[in-house]
Amino acid sequence: MFEVAELGHAVAKAEYKARVPELRTRLLTLQQRLLEADFPVLVLVSGVDGAGKGATVNLLNEWLDPRHLRTYAFGPKSDEERERPDFWRFWRALPPHGHIGIYVGSWYSDPIADRLHDRISDADLDARLQQARAFEKMLADDGALVIKFWLHLSRTAQKERLDALAADPETAWRVTRRDREHLKLYDRFRAVAGHALRETSTGDLPWVIVEGADPRYRHLTVGRHLADRLETHLDGAGARQTRAGSKHIATPTESDPRTVLDTVDLSRSLPKKAYKAALTEHQNRLSRLSRRAAERGVSSIVVLEGWDAAGKGGIIRRIVPALDARHFQVIQVAAPTDEERAHHYLWRFWRHIPRAGNTTVYDRSWYGRVLVERVEGLCSEAEWLRAYAELDDFERQLTGHGIVLVKLWLHIDPDEQLRRFQEREQVPWKRHKITEEDYRNREKRALYEHAVNDMVERTGTEYAPWTLIAANDKRHARIEALKTFCERLEAALDGAAQPRPSPGLE
Amino acid sequence: MFEVAELGHAVAKAEYKARVPELRTRLLTLQQRLLEADFPVLVLVSGVDGAGKGATVNLLNEWLDPRHLRTYAFGPKSDEERERPDFWRFWRALPPHGHIGIYVGSWYSDPIADRLHDRISDADLDARLQQARAFEKMLADDGALVIKFWLHLSRTAQKERLDALAADPETAWRVTRRDREHLKLYDRFRAVAGHALRETSTGDLPWVIVEGADPRYRHLTVGRHLADRLETHLDGAGARQTRAGSKHIATPTESDPRTVLDTVDLSRSLPKKAYKAALTEHQNRLSRLSRRAAERGVSSIVVLEGWDAAGKGGIIRRIVPALDARHFQVIQVAAPTDEERAHHYLWRFWRHIPRAGNTTVYDRSWYGRVLVERVEGLCSEAEWLRAYAELDDFERQLTGHGIVLVKLWLHIDPDEQLRRFQEREQVPWKRHKITEEDYRNREKRALYEHAVNDMVERTGTEYAPWTLIAANDKRHARIEALKTFCERLEAALDGAAQPRPSPGLE
Repeated sequence: MFEVAELGHAVAKAEYKARVPELRTRLLTLQQRLLEADFPVLVLVSGVDGAGKGATVNLLNEWLDPRHLRTYAFGPKSDEERERPDFWRFWRALPPHGHIGIYVGSWYSDPIADRLHDRISDADLDARLQQARAFEKMLADDGALVIKFWLHLSRTAQKERLDALAADPETAWRVTRRDREHLKLYDRFRAVAGHALRETSTGDLPWVIVEGADPRYRHLTVGRHLADRLETHLDGAGARQTRAGSKHIATPTESDPRTVLDTVDLSRSLPKKAYKAALTEHQNRLSRLSRRAAERGVSSIVVLEGWDAAGKGGIIRRIVPALDARHFQVIQVAAPTDEERAHHYLWRFWRHIPRAGNTTVYDRSWYGRVLVERVEGLCSEAEWLRAYAELDDFERQLTGHGIVLVKLWLHIDPDEQLRRFQEREQVPWKRHKITEEDYRNREKRALYEHAVNDMVERTGTEYAPWTLIAANDKRHARIEALKTFCERLEAALDGAAQPRPSPGLE
Repeated sequence: MFEVAELGHAVAKAEYKARVPELRTRLLTLQQRLLEADFPVLVLVSGVDGAGKGATVNLLNEWLDPRHLRTYAFGPKSDEERERPDFWRFWRALPPHGHIGIYVGSWYSDPIADRLHDRISDADLDARLQQARAFEKMLADDGALVIKFWLHLSRTAQKERLDALAADPETAWRVTRRDREHLKLYDRFRAVAGHALRETSTGDLPWVIVEGADPRYRHLTVGRHLADRLETHLDGAGARQTRAGSKHIATPTESDPRTVLDTVDLSRSLPKKAYKAALTEHQNRLSRLSRRAAERGVSSIVVLEGWDAAGKGGIIRRIVPALDARHFQVIQVAAPTDEERAHHYLWRFWRHIPRAGNTTVYDRSWYGRVLVERVEGLCSEAEWLRAYAELDDFERQLTGHGIVLVKLWLHIDPDEQLRRFQEREQVPWKRHKITEEDYRNREKRALYEHAVNDMVERTGTEYAPWTLIAANDKRHARIEALKTFCERLEAALDGAAQPRPSPGLE
């Protein structure tokens, strides 16, 4: 794998001097075009210590316009990072459309280092590489250009370089004990890194191995490759445009119109008196559980989905009194802000992942992708089709980190929905909730039912199951929602029955 | 001060039940109106322990629509917070326009607790209260509605309440050792808090003292006051609109057209050879200094202001090679995003304050307020006039935290500027930089000179001085900029001559 990067590639000074001005102009011109584009660029600079990672990153900062790029290095996690899934820190560091993010150290650093020092097994490493691959694929599918450089040095070259750095007082500080240790581990490092690169080098997302010994060769190679990839991607952006243009309005194709929603018994109801008793009981129970969760640092996320007017707000208002407002937040998912629009569609959900011990309720959620966006043709068929896997991956990360994830679908029939729309129109401070669109959406009921069916089928997992709640009777629905939340929280706190995704993922 | 809140105010159950539905409807209706408004609401819930702060916050979450409000509690600082000025955590927690932020614990908690436990002196307390007042005033001046509740309990009532909480297993967890200690310190706490409240109760930003002993009285009082203030503010919003409408285009009124810029000797220049030597010298110097700064956790911020085409980009490109890209970021200040627009104008700058040991270069900055926004009438006269104090306050917080703040104004004369505009139009990848607007701005030179003069006069302080750089000769300007940065960093690292704002502010 690394042999081609041990051939002693070098570029003469005169050639370098001749090539650089043109390359810089080209890079700057491309960067200008990028500013108007609808995708971000991620440049990973990884590799062997001493192969010039720092110098390469600094060079890119010099050659490109530093106002539209940002370099991210990842040291030890901050406490705010430790309280979220591993990838939260990388989601925080994603560049918006038109910008370049340069990564020194990345989602590969820890897995490789952990395997090198025997903190994880081969199987764990592979699981984590699979995560890295999924992350990049998701970004690339969304249009991002991801370029992965691996700067390589032979063992001999690495030793010579470290010795040279150490000998110069100006650079001696760069040589850490970790570098010396890595040199000792060179052969093992090479094997682990080689495995990691092979596992994560795909057609779209190849690793580019660059011989690091000669700075001029390294700089020209990295710069040219960056320019070439950027140009190709920018030229292809027009083609990708049709992706969003090729809108596809879903139509149910099944001959059998039955869906998983037909299994919900909408006749279920709760008399007022029983409701009042159950409400107090479950609010108290939730209150106790949430205090234990706060003490133990267990976070929870409640996803509320359901038909318009199915009673999401009413459920939120019944959850609120049971929780300490200081540890609780409701995120209403409405139109994205322009910062959110300039990122992957999951970015806006990642940014609200609660700190340890806190609860976030999403009033509508990431499932918009496979519901309203699918049915209304707001994304392409390819986009919503691949979303099932992306959403599952997202939820694996949440639950893998120990977050309790409760997903509720509130089900009502069309007659009940119409009745509620009309009722809302009578109440001054509810009237704004009902728009023409609500009525229009009602007419697409069959399409939505089909979408809900697919959603439950494809994203209902052991660790993040869907609970379908009969909500024609509001009282019944509220108690069911509270009960479900309590049960899931209890299972997690008692550590007994809480399913987690397969190990090694978090 | 607190006597009126020890009268045993109480509300009978029947009256409470009769009043609440109307009050809730009113609050929800007002909150709906607020969603469309161009200001945020901050509700501080402070007071004596056991006076029902938690219950009040939970109640507001119940009565209001929790999707448009968020509760913020401030425990020990996270490490990311510790690395920034004290108020950074509060800036992070500011609600956008149309939303409500509820604060349990706030910028008052630490100052009062610190004085109570003799960690700071009376003078320190007053300095910190002054900071709190300035923060609120700044928000209020920008249109925010700030409501400050102080829930009070007499000593007897506090003791009774804590005992009652402790006796009930459902609530015993709420009584902490800190609460018991505070009870012992009641008289002293009352005196310190009373002082704090008096010092920070202004006409626009009064403290509302609410007797906390009877929950029904407390709830109705808080709810009604919130509704009244919200209604008044919403009704007044039309009046405030004229604030932005009353645009005032600045005109120089002085009979003497000379400004501080006339003191800059634009004939200064540097021959190419001397420049090359000086560049290497100062880049090496900056490189060494920035490494020391990174080790010691000293952050720096470079503010680059100057005429269009004065050479800001060129200076950034000369700073870049001296710094480690991993600890360095350039923020280009262009049009704000919609999230930024929904906050105070300084919010977008606070969000980029570097972590410990890092450097941020602002390519244009918060001074836009008193330069382009003033001259082009993008803000009202009142807004830019009060900005001098706001900017000074901001910079006091930065420098008070130990951040090295370097402010550079790059000066060129109109002929040189014109020459550079024309030159840029010849270069393909620079052409986009020159627009009609640049030429238009040129015609307002006198107005801008006047604005720069005022800016330097009013915001050039010992701890955050302006350096005016003669930039007709690019080489001279680049070396001056590097030298200034080096000198300021060196002074800070040697701990000798680095001026700080008066103590107690950070």
